[in-house]
Amino acid sequence: MRVIDENTITDAALEQMSSTPNQRLKEIMASLVRHLHGFAREVDLTPDEWLQAIKFLTAVGQKCTEHRQEFILLSDTLGLSALVNALHDKRGTESATKSSLLGPFYRHDAPMMKLGDSIISKSKGTEIAFYGQVVDTNGKGIPNALVQIWEPDETGNYDLQLHDPSEMDLRGCFHCDSEGRYYFRGLCPTGYMIPMDGPVGDMIRAQKRHGYRPAHIHFVIGAPGYRELVTALYINGDPHLESDTVFGVSQSLVVTVNKKDDKSPLPHLASLRYDFKLAATKDQTSGRVGADPSQIIGKAAH
Amino acid sequence: MRVIDENTITDAALEQMSSTPNQRLKEIMASLVRHLHGFAREVDLTPDEWLQAIKFLTAVGQKCTEHRQEFILLSDTLGLSALVNALHDKRGTESATKSSLLGPFYRHDAPMMKLGDSIISKSKGTEIAFYGQVVDTNGKGIPNALVQIWEPDETGNYDLQLHDPSEMDLRGCFHCDSEGRYYFRGLCPTGYMIPMDGPVGDMIRAQKRHGYRPAHIHFVIGAPGYRELVTALYINGDPHLESDTVFGVSQSLVVTVNKKDDKSPLPHLASLRYDFKLAATKDQTSGRVGADPSQIIGKAAH
Repeated sequence: MRVIDENTITDAALEQMSSTPNQRLKEIMASLVRHLHGFAREVDLTPDEWLQAIKFLTAVGQKCTEHRQEFILLSDTLGLSALVNALHDKRGTESATKSSLLGPFYRHDAPMMKLGDSIISKSKGTEIAFYGQVVDTNGKGIPNALVQIWEPDETGNYDLQLHDPSEMDLRGCFHCDSEGRYYFRGLCPTGYMIPMDGPVGDMIRAQKRHGYRPAHIHFVIGAPGYRELVTALYINGDPHLESDTVFGVSQSLVVTVNKKDDKSPLPHLASLRYDFKLAATKDQTSGRVGADPSQIIGKAAH
Repeated sequence: MRVIDENTITDAALEQMSSTPNQRLKEIMASLVRHLHGFAREVDLTPDEWLQAIKFLTAVGQKCTEHRQEFILLSDTLGLSALVNALHDKRGTESATKSSLLGPFYRHDAPMMKLGDSIISKSKGTEIAFYGQVVDTNGKGIPNALVQIWEPDETGNYDLQLHDPSEMDLRGCFHCDSEGRYYFRGLCPTGYMIPMDGPVGDMIRAQKRHGYRPAHIHFVIGAPGYRELVTALYINGDPHLESDTVFGVSQSLVVTVNKKDDKSPLPHLASLRYDFKLAATKDQTSGRVGADPSQIIGKAAH
């Protein structure tokens, strides 16, 4: 009879999974098992430590609700989401705008607005203008591109964290004009601490990490024939740009707020300008690292 | 500014976790991040696949209840629990009885019984005698050792899966006599399919695995000064001994039911004899891979 020991168990598991008909699932699970077992052997994981891990993962799953995705937060804080984004960017066109994390606060049902509208409905704070152009990798404007935006309020909280989920604030969807230009009004972004009241917060505290994200505003930008771009803009001067708890910042996504800008379509406001460059694609893979928590929970429920 | 790409992200994450005061936690998390990132790079994990994984892990967490531990089931089916057991055995004494999986159906509050009692309270089926001796690695009986037992019924279900959780069946705790001997009556064990109505069942089906565990009965055995032994006995002739879905079987734990056994303290019944060998220890680490689901959920809840 086969001997199952700390060395043979990995082959035994791979052999049992070798009947998987979907070749990609088979490849992913085989690699996962090898790396997971390699980890346990490397640290000589004890039964007590294993049980702590089971408790932790259970608590992460049980903290998820229709409006909170603690597993995405865990992936973000372990650098896995940023890695998946980087791999996604590498498969694309080098000159396209870099991805950044979608994070756990996206909603698919943000309201459609008109260019120039304000995404502020309930919050107070300093209003600024956001504007720029959505272009292809040759610099040509993409007419009618769809731009989705969300940001936290001045206290660093998203609407989902504060209000009845039916009340939206600081979210909006805009169609660009015929030259790919967009402009809207919003709050000057504020840095914040990730949600610390769950098991991921316990982990961050146990690791003595500060838990902060630098000030940023989220964008998802799409147009037929182009790879969907999930990204964010980060505000120059924020003290946590180099130590983002979820590793989302790229230098090319750091922008400066201009107090006076004659080129802005809303010249009476301080402004933040950014042009987004989308790569052409034949397939319509979203490249969206993260999604609406309510969709995730809904689909996952048994 | 630091460039975060698919290669530098791992060092960035390790650097941020380097402030962890608990050195063992730091070591475990660093190894985990390296292996997790290595996995994602090796399979070139896409955002869509990552999202499937988030949904799956969320569903596993949400399937857990006071009486069901889907994350232990996941660990079991990936061979991780068996690996942690093997590493535990390797740190102990070679001649001691091998560990096996605790699995997700242990309860800490099984009733105390007297030697010779039956653990069958509600179920029907073929009653047999279980007996043997709990000894040290020199073969000397360990007086008064505590033996905890649980097994499924003839349909392959544990009491937790069938009844109001306050009603126990096919569980018991016994103190050995002054020579370390134990004996009790129970059902001849039945093989069964692991719970297939959750996300782990979905995974097993997608991998075209049969999902069966060979017939077995669980034991947790402890005595002051000895390493707690978590193990199980497997019934010779079961068709799934070589292909256990959770990799729990060792040759040394496979036993044969004797139809007639004059040495049995209950000679009117068919019997299953096994002597358990415990290693001495100075510390009291339990070595228990798994635990009472209600304790896990209770402690994990925020």
